[in-house]
Amino acid sequence: MKDQPSAKHANGAAPAFLRNCWYVAAWGSELPPGTHMKRILLDRPILLMRDEEERAAAIGNVCPHRFASLSAGRFQDGLVECPYHGLRFDMAGRCVLNPHGDGRIAERARVHSYPLVERHGALWIWPGDAEAADPASIPDLSFLDTPSPADRAPGYLLTPANYQLASDNILDLSHSDFLHHATLGTAGELAGSPAKARLHGDAVTIEWAFEGKGMVLQRPLRDHADVHTRFEVSWYPAGVMIIRNEVQLAGDPASLKKKAGVHIMTPETARTTHYFFENGEAERKQMLQLALKVFESEDGVMLEDVQANMGGRGFWEMEPLVLSNDSGAILARRVLDRLIRQEMR
Amino acid sequence: MKDQPSAKHANGAAPAFLRNCWYVAAWGSELPPGTHMKRILLDRPILLMRDEEERAAAIGNVCPHRFASLSAGRFQDGLVECPYHGLRFDMAGRCVLNPHGDGRIAERARVHSYPLVERHGALWIWPGDAEAADPASIPDLSFLDTPSPADRAPGYLLTPANYQLASDNILDLSHSDFLHHATLGTAGELAGSPAKARLHGDAVTIEWAFEGKGMVLQRPLRDHADVHTRFEVSWYPAGVMIIRNEVQLAGDPASLKKKAGVHIMTPETARTTHYFFENGEAERKQMLQLALKVFESEDGVMLEDVQANMGGRGFWEMEPLVLSNDSGAILARRVLDRLIRQEMR
Amino acid sequence: MKDQPSAKHANGAAPAFLRNCWYVAAWGSELPPGTHMKRILLDRPILLMRDEEERAAAIGNVCPHRFASLSAGRFQDGLVECPYHGLRFDMAGRCVLNPHGDGRIAERARVHSYPLVERHGALWIWPGDAEAADPASIPDLSFLDTPSPADRAPGYLLTPANYQLASDNILDLSHSDFLHHATLGTAGELAGSPAKARLHGDAVTIEWAFEGKGMVLQRPLRDHADVHTRFEVSWYPAGVMIIRNEVQLAGDPASLKKKAGVHIMTPETARTTHYFFENGEAERKQMLQLALKVFESEDGVMLEDVQANMGGRGFWEMEPLVLSNDSGAILARRVLDRLIRQEMR
Repeated sequence: MKDQPSAKHANGAAPAFLRNCWYVAAWGSELPPGTHMKRILLDRPILLMRDEEERAAAIGNVCPHRFASLSAGRFQDGLVECPYHGLRFDMAGRCVLNPHGDGRIAERARVHSYPLVERHGALWIWPGDAEAADPASIPDLSFLDTPSPADRAPGYLLTPANYQLASDNILDLSHSDFLHHATLGTAGELAGSPAKARLHGDAVTIEWAFEGKGMVLQRPLRDHADVHTRFEVSWYPAGVMIIRNEVQLAGDPASLKKKAGVHIMTPETARTTHYFFENGEAERKQMLQLALKVFESEDGVMLEDVQANMGGRGFWEMEPLVLSNDSGAILARRVLDRLIRQEMR
Repeated sequence: MKDQPSAKHANGAAPAFLRNCWYVAAWGSELPPGTHMKRILLDRPILLMRDEEERAAAIGNVCPHRFASLSAGRFQDGLVECPYHGLRFDMAGRCVLNPHGDGRIAERARVHSYPLVERHGALWIWPGDAEAADPASIPDLSFLDTPSPADRAPGYLLTPANYQLASDNILDLSHSDFLHHATLGTAGELAGSPAKARLHGDAVTIEWAFEGKGMVLQRPLRDHADVHTRFEVSWYPAGVMIIRNEVQLAGDPASLKKKAGVHIMTPETARTTHYFFENGEAERKQMLQLALKVFESEDGVMLEDVQANMGGRGFWEMEPLVLSNDSGAILARRVLDRLIRQEMR
Repeated sequence: MKDQPSAKHANGAAPAFLRNCWYVAAWGSELPPGTHMKRILLDRPILLMRDEEERAAAIGNVCPHRFASLSAGRFQDGLVECPYHGLRFDMAGRCVLNPHGDGRIAERARVHSYPLVERHGALWIWPGDAEAADPASIPDLSFLDTPSPADRAPGYLLTPANYQLASDNILDLSHSDFLHHATLGTAGELAGSPAKARLHGDAVTIEWAFEGKGMVLQRPLRDHADVHTRFEVSWYPAGVMIIRNEVQLAGDPASLKKKAGVHIMTPETARTTHYFFENGEAERKQMLQLALKVFESEDGVMLEDVQANMGGRGFWEMEPLVLSNDSGAILARRVLDRLIRQEMR
């Protein structure tokens, strides 16, 4: 069976995703031992499963015989059974049982197996060439790791827009002054601060710094008028971002508070994005509900509107007006465009 | 940003609309002072707004920076603020505030401004070349003008079919004998009367005349058996129509009653139409509820069915059977086809 | 008017159906005397009607004048009236009344008339060339015929998948062991039995035979451990199938029980199928409710999933893994592919 994406861009071209890259397919906690689940990633139907020994794996979700979704079948003892005609596959995608006729198993009776690494509480899969899948290239999110999984508070939303639009949104925090003014309380500070972006390898970092009133989210200092605030967003291909935030009272280095959180955008289709987010240890659980609300009802609504206004057109085809606050997002888009072009050669 | 329509015909071709023409975008009463609204016109997202001094204007609704809908932002003092990153635009579509970095405003930081004229209680916009926008070419609907806006009773419906199908429907009133038999009461009189159509300039007029029982809608004479009835429909590109109706008792010129109403079809997309309608002074308000009911549940349902049966095919591609009652509609289609072809050269 | 299908394959190509073939359009009992109904068949809107003398007929459902659905108009005395402008058509699709102007009826004022035969309780129509429509090629389903129509218990479902996928499902009964294990009770017997398929003319027959426990549906023998079971499926183009089942106790020829049922797949569109089914006389009515439930909630759900996983791709384009149990379905697909290719030459 052709293990290829089936959805297409509105303009008929296949969506171009970077294949040789680690993508978060799910939070590890979404997949308890002995369970399996379907998820569309980069337009491909994928089966995620975890056996009783807690080993996780990812294979194509479509049976090569008659194209049923394996996720609709039973998963037991590390084997998934096709619900239509009973072929069984192991966690590496190999057919291990053919209940028909003489039971012979053809060499090509297999589904694609995706390299999978569980790290920082997330399941990372590699849609590209398996021999190139080096776990060392997974971005370091170790600030998420805490002694106990019970302390984690990962968030997930399906965002109705392209993953690059969703990444742009994080790479330009100035939108908070307008889109999140009522909920997060910034009022021009981010837009007014010169945004400095830089490229390091294939990563991009952009930062903002300003003096003024403490922001709503910076609880210990929010009633103070004289706060130094610094934001930094680091982006790694194809859509892993860390937001770091520091606040401190003017002239009082001891008052320094640091926070960090991840915002990870994995394409589901060309127009929808799996959005994984979590804060570092401080205020992790308190933040989750606010984040879910803001990301869904403010960012999600905006990104869906932008996606609809773009219709089937590409970003550059829209001839966007570029502002100073776009520098990080534009750098990241250029990196990604270059990596995808290299891969398609 | 490309200020172009995004929707396409089912067959992949861009829908061809006449650009250099005045279109009703809204009734003036839909847009109170200090408000703004979005409307799709000829497949383009457009922002209509009216400031506190009652001046109305129309500009593109998509921010050239990151493609948010301006209609989702605040409108105050004649300025609309983009809800995503805070750019502000005046009523001519010029960016007047960039809250980012050094605040410089690029020359191309603007959205398309549409010539707009408010006349006969309607907001007319011109999607074509601004220098060709001559308000003298707006059809004369002055019979709608009354001393006080409080006397007006304009109607609006979104019709789920192409605007030319909706115009055809008005240009062939004989459908009333069948589609509206139960509600309007004609029973073959219009179909039986020879329909005479003529071309005058780029306008088309078609008329029907018959003797018989007074129609339901002609209240003063409806119980009489011996009534002379005359209908006349005048069409102006791209879809402005006036229906004029005269009834009089046979041999009694003093019994003559005249009515008139407008039926205006503005394309929203290739398959949906903004339908604006209103009667002249007589019985204006009494008629509105009946009209809304009939146009939505009888004409609207029929036109949606016709549109569905056509699929993505064009009218001529359907090789329609032409009857005598089609003469006005066919003349109008030929005028419009010619005007659109001229414009596309 | 072009009497052509309007829907397209996802990949833009028109779906290829075999035209010169009898298709079941409806059960006869769906169309009482004096009624008419619309049905989409092979992507074409078709009007089925039966006059008071019980004669049934099928014509195109789209008025050639302005493309209204004739099914929305009145049907009386064997004439259907277009609900939009009142043209009347007889059961052969000829316009017999034009209420407009001088009432002249053009030669081309007609809709396509489909050869129709009522046989075995079903209305069979022929979408191809009328002169080739020989009722002798209707498969013999006379085992359905019983003395009284009151004894019939025909079933109908709209299946959300291509008709060939629906036929494949019947042509490979081994899926029962997995998909219907809980409802029908087979547990590997069909998959384990070698499936023998053979071609006879343009028909295909495949059979299974095994010894073991009596199946749930074989009520008289279901509690016995030593049962010989035989299944046979015969397929006739484009999608008429008969399932025959025989059971008997080992060494007891007198215990032989036979059952038979029809499973008829008529394409509605490329992705939806009219599924007509009925059992022969034995246990006919008792079986109907179980069949409706199983076919809708088990087969229908599975076929919809398979269709979705195929996206817009064709069956062979999916490069299916072929198993021994596929032999009947593959033979039938090859016959149909050949017949369609011959027709398109």
